[in-house]
Amino acid sequence: MQLIHYSLCPHSRTARLLLNEYGIETALAEEKPWEWRAPFLAVNPGGNLPVILLDNAAICGIYPITEYLIETNVYTEDATIPELLPEEPVARAETRRMVDWFHTKFYHEVWSYLSYERIENPFVHRKAPNPEAIRAAMANLHNHMAYLSRLLEERYWIGGDYISIADIAAAAHISCLDFIGDVTWERAPIVKNWYARVKSRPSFRPLLQDTVPGIVPPPFYTNLDF
Amino acid sequence: MQLIHYSLCPHSRTARLLLNEYGIETALAEEKPWEWRAPFLAVNPGGNLPVILLDNAAICGIYPITEYLIETNVYTEDATIPELLPEEPVARAETRRMVDWFHTKFYHEVWSYLSYERIENPFVHRKAPNPEAIRAAMANLHNHMAYLSRLLEERYWIGGDYISIADIAAAAHISCLDFIGDVTWERAPIVKNWYARVKSRPSFRPLLQDTVPGIVPPPFYTNLDF
Repeated sequence: MQLIHYSLCPHSRTARLLLNEYGIETALAEEKPWEWRAPFLAVNPGGNLPVILLDNAAICGIYPITEYLIETNVYTEDATIPELLPEEPVARAETRRMVDWFHTKFYHEVWSYLSYERIENPFVHRKAPNPEAIRAAMANLHNHMAYLSRLLEERYWIGGDYISIADIAAAAHISCLDFIGDVTWERAPIVKNWYARVKSRPSFRPLLQDTVPGIVPPPFYTNLDF
Repeated sequence: MQLIHYSLCPHSRTARLLLNEYGIETALAEEKPWEWRAPFLAVNPGGNLPVILLDNAAICGIYPITEYLIETNVYTEDATIPELLPEEPVARAETRRMVDWFHTKFYHEVWSYLSYERIENPFVHRKAPNPEAIRAAMANLHNHMAYLSRLLEERYWIGGDYISIADIAAAAHISCLDFIGDVTWERAPIVKNWYARVKSRPSFRPLLQDTVPGIVPPPFYTNLDF
């Protein structure tokens, strides 16, 4: 099994965390999402990341990958592997609402702007970031962090009482923002407390060791006690 | 059960078609997505459509709704209700890839532009549509129709050999575009042939009877043999 990913892609990080939680070893192949390389498009015509390569099939995109990993790991006998989706249908729907919140809403309102301005613009197009776009994305980020704070006052994990794919998705997005130094932790102590719990899981360790040319994460990025 | 929806919202149409396929009767409540009404946001803080209201829970967004409807209808004894997701994990992933293609890629590259320029701009903001945005969206639409044509040369349905949630999602998006007159059917005869098959299903009938103030769909919109 191979995972085609990019380190600072929240959807790719979600897949890596899920694979690590399930104890599935995968070779990683990096794909820069802005390059639209023909050999990659031949595998995934949609051009989106991540992609899991099986022997004779490709699973393209975080929605199919998440559901595939849950479906193929749900009957595992290994008690150390967490169930990442509750069994009750309405609880599953609430968990998936929060997964969707991050992969769609948070992604489009925060990450797509910040990644363009802080990564693609300076390193690919050699252009200065647009301060107005950054300001708009940061305002959206503060609103989202406030919503998460309210949510985490009522529940211990993002999707409910137990850790789930919603925490994995949320932590993947927030870890990308943390890498580029955009999370103002002092404004959201409850979210910080939750993130410290997810970040301390063994599944997270490999992600914290990633390096990206030209970007130095803040010193607390790798600290489990930040 | 109540469905909060908007007629010209492809995600809402997907939910209506799924409910109709599964023979689940629901009261419809219209919500205009651009109004961001406080009572609606109290039900769904994400503000996205559609939402299913159960007795004491809300299921928000097309991803949780689709999976919820599949999970709660999969063991039905009624042979007239189609299985809308194959059983084999890789085939399920391919079906979900195409669902995601429409709900995310197609939506953001085509529908979000065209609905803004053709519906929200003239009827809400009383502004003329931006011809450049329309041109860009139409170019994207032609590329997507070409991809669908290639796909449908190899398979009878969008997700594979059987009708699935991918056909439902695809037909929901295309029916919205057809309503505002933006599908150039003569360029994509294979897609037209597939759409005629989906459109003829009883689940589709109620959607074809929708009216939207200020917009007159082309005469072939309601024809099953167009």
